[in-house]
Order: sequence, then structure tokens, then C-alpha cells
Amino acid sequence: MWAFAKGHGTKNDFVLLTDEHDTLAPTDAQVRFLCDRRAGIGGDGLLRAVRARHITGWQGDPDVWFMDYRNADASVAEMCGNGLRVFLRYLVEEGLASGPDIAVGTRAGSRHGEVRPDGTVRVTMGRVRTQPEPVTVALGDRSWPAHGANVGNPHAVVIVGGEDELDALNLERAPQITPNGAFPAGVNVEFVQLVAARHARMRVFERGAGETLSCGTGTVAVAAILAQRGGVGDSTWRIDVPGGSLGVELTAEGAWLSGPAVIVARGLVSVPQVG
Amino acid sequence: MWAFAKGHGTKNDFVLLTDEHDTLAPTDAQVRFLCDRRAGIGGDGLLRAVRARHITGWQGDPDVWFMDYRNADASVAEMCGNGLRVFLRYLVEEGLASGPDIAVGTRAGSRHGEVRPDGTVRVTMGRVRTQPEPVTVALGDRSWPAHGANVGNPHAVVIVGGEDELDALNLERAPQITPNGAFPAGVNVEFVQLVAARHARMRVFERGAGETLSCGTGTVAVAAILAQRGGVGDSTWRIDVPGGSLGVELTAEGAWLSGPAVIVARGLVSVPQVG
Repeated sequence: MWAFAKGHGTKNDFVLLTDEHDTLAPTDAQVRFLCDRRAGIGGDGLLRAVRARHITGWQGDPDVWFMDYRNADASVAEMCGNGLRVFLRYLVEEGLASGPDIAVGTRAGSRHGEVRPDGTVRVTMGRVRTQPEPVTVALGDRSWPAHGANVGNPHAVVIVGGEDELDALNLERAPQITPNGAFPAGVNVEFVQLVAARHARMRVFERGAGETLSCGTGTVAVAAILAQRGGVGDSTWRIDVPGGSLGVELTAEGAWLSGPAVIVARGLVSVPQVG
Repeated sequence: MWAFAKGHGTKNDFVLLTDEHDTLAPTDAQVRFLCDRRAGIGGDGLLRAVRARHITGWQGDPDVWFMDYRNADASVAEMCGNGLRVFLRYLVEEGLASGPDIAVGTRAGSRHGEVRPDGTVRVTMGRVRTQPEPVTVALGDRSWPAHGANVGNPHAVVIVGGEDELDALNLERAPQITPNGAFPAGVNVEFVQLVAARHARMRVFERGAGETLSCGTGTVAVAAILAQRGGVGDSTWRIDVPGGSLGVELTAEGAWLSGPAVIVARGLVSVPQVG
């Protein structure tokens, strides 16, 4: 039996494990079992808290907690903005770290953030790189110009006309990008409607996953593109996703992501030992 | 915090609660929260163990455990064969009942069964009523004759030619039944391929849910129809579903369903108190 927790941030959900000395070291099959929504616990991914000294290639402080993030299919992922927020909430609730500022290791490097008194969690997201040349995104028989942004992972941001247009989009099929080679590793596509000054609403099609209820890096990409197009510099944005609302702060030093992150349940799980 | 368990039978999965004195009495919103796969625990439904004396209208033994089954959308359901198997496994593992034979109350009346030494669970499913007149099931531009059966809930069983034909069916759209009024309350449709003597493989489209990985009552309907068409009486069948394999015994007194049922995890969940 392994002790586990389950939590989510704007309905991006995760199974969490503490494995301080890297002794559990889940196999791929065990990761898939834990994330299996029917046969296991269920989640978009697994967040394992392990001391950074056990991570091969880690160059930073060996004593920080490392967020070993695995997708539900057991593949390794570099970063996940909502995952990082849920991970900090977990460290604090488990008594593994205390604030205000908490530093952790990730495969994208050191990150830090804080669990705030109002219950929200705010984390660093690094610098956003925007692309000067627009691309074209097509969905069915429609197409729009789109703006590329990199938040550790690649995004293409489409600004649509209004609420009805955003709601009517059929995201059951993958958007097509022109030119073909614009994003060699694939891209997450955000469709955005500006609600008010510094407040937008978005839907997202994530590469390899389809439409999802939230994408933390996607909200940062959207804020960066909207700020650039609006000619504003340092600014704070509210981005509504289907799973809730997130806040994005853009500063010269980098972006911050904030919003709700909760641990819903804790328990013991019987994990198959084979494979 | 409420104590919960999560379990499944051939990947039909459930959140389980013990509420002996009917004091938790989850609201509809709390049922939906518990079954929410992202914001809560996640399951096809909630199985609440409550003493039968607290159930309005219950005429039987007031001291048995009653399986208060709710669908994930909080609607009340009469029976669920896989749910009943997982419920018996839960009662035994929690020390709430001991075997070999365990009687429980359900909205479909008294049921009983046993948790067997090999880990499988076997439960009574009552009598199956088959319909003499075939109906027609259409899917896209194809159609087949289908045989009606009632296992507490209505089923229509289609026998297809072979493995390739079964695999190729597109069950993303609902099968259409002719005549229109044949099943006024809707119907679950099973597509079946005979693998060997008394061994079949099926896929199922459940009313209100679409294609699912398993349907206990559906496997009983399939065995009853195949037995009737083969001219066999009392018989034991293996029915493979996408989520695993189930056994069905047909006897003059009624049908039995058996197969794996496991409790995967136990823990404490923070349930919103509003609504």
C-alpha cells in the first residue's frame, strides 16, 4: 500500500506521492495504474515528491523537493503550471515545506512560489518568448492568424471575435497549422476572447490530449500575446478557462501564474507490484 | 472529511461510503462531487452502505445493508450487477459482513451473493425475461435483427458475424431501434460475437452513457439470448467485455453473475458542505 493524495488546479488533476528517498520509484505500468481513472485513482498525471539529490543530472540544491512529473501515459514531462501549483499546496499540507517562498526542482530547472493566505497558489513560470511572424490556424473550414509563444512549451494563440464564436468552436478535431513546419514538436492552440481590459476567456486544444479544462502555460501565453498586441508591458491578467479562473502577472523578470489549487483526498492505494 | 473507498469490477468503477445510520445522506451536489473524475474522486456511480431500516418503503429485513446506488449524475438507479459485486467485496473487506452468503437490500429488492476464495464475487441477478418478437437495430447504414431481454433493465442483443465485424463497429453514435416504441424507457444494446461453445465477446452501448467497458446486466442478457437460441437450458457462460471477463450461470431459479471485484484505495475526502 502506498500513501497517496489527489488534487487539482482548475480541474487539471493529479495523483501525488511522497517518495523522499526514491524507494518507491514507480514503474511505467505503476504510473499508468495510478492515473487510470477506472482501474486506479485517476489523474492527468502523477506528481512525485522526491529529494532532488536522487535525480540524475540535477545541478541545483540537492535538498530541495523535486517535482517528478509524469503524464498519465507514463511519459516524462518537463513542466506543468497547474501541476506545480498543486505540488506546492501538497508540500505545505503534508508539512514537507513551509513558506512563504518555497523552492522546488523541476525538469525545466528551479522554480518557486507561495501558498497564499487566501488559499491560492502563485508560481514562477519563467520568461515567455513570443514569435514575430504569425502563423495560420485552421479548424474545419475556418482559419485565423495566430501568434506563437513559448512558455517552456510551444503555444499558438488565436483571438476570436466574441463569446458566441468561442463557444461554437468544435475542438473535437485538431486545429491545423500553416506553414506545416512552424512547430516541429507540435503545439498547444489557445482560442481567446477578450472580455474586458486585462480579462480574457480561452479554450485550449493540447497536443496529444485534445481539448482540456485548463492549461497553465496556455494562460501565460495568452496574457503575453494580448499584452504585446495591446502595447502594454508589466500587467496583471485574469484568464478564464473551462475549469476555472487563473491570474497571470507579466513582469520584465518573467511571468507568474496564480489560482486555486486543492488537495481533495488522501489515502492508501494497493499498487500492483508487477511491471 | 468522509471516509471513502474506490473499487471496480471489470472497470465499472465506484466510490463507496459507509453511512450506517444515514447521517451523511449525501446531497445530489455531493454525489456529483464524489463521482467527478477531476474535481473529486471519480466513478461511474456512488455505492453507499446504509442500514435498510433507513430506506423509505423498504419491506424486508431492516438490519441488512442496503446498497444505495446513485449514478454519477446523482440520479437514482435500481440495480447494477458490477456495482453489487463491488459492494459485497467492500462489505467483507470493511468487516461489515461475513460470508459465505451475504444478503443485501437494493431498490430492485433483496439480493445476495458471496466473495469466493479465489477473489471473485458471485451475485444473484434474478430471472431474465426474453421477448419473443425480434426488433431491428441499425448503426449507420447497417442493420441487424436483435433479441430483447429484461434483467431488471432492458437490453437488445445483436449477434454479429465475427471478431473483425465486432471490432469495426463505430459505437460513438447511438444504435437506432425499430419499431420506435419497442423500448419506451430506452434500451442497452449489446453486440455479440460467439467465440466458442458458451463463450462470447461483447461490446455494449448503454442508454444515457454511450459505449462502456462493462455492463453486468448486459452479460446476463447476452448469455440468456445465446442459450435460448442454442436450445440449451441451465448453462454456464463466459462473456468477455472490454474491461475483462465475466461468468454467467443460467438456472431455472434465475441467473448468477461472477467475476473480479476489487477495492483499490481507501482514504479521507474533503466534501463541500454546500448544496
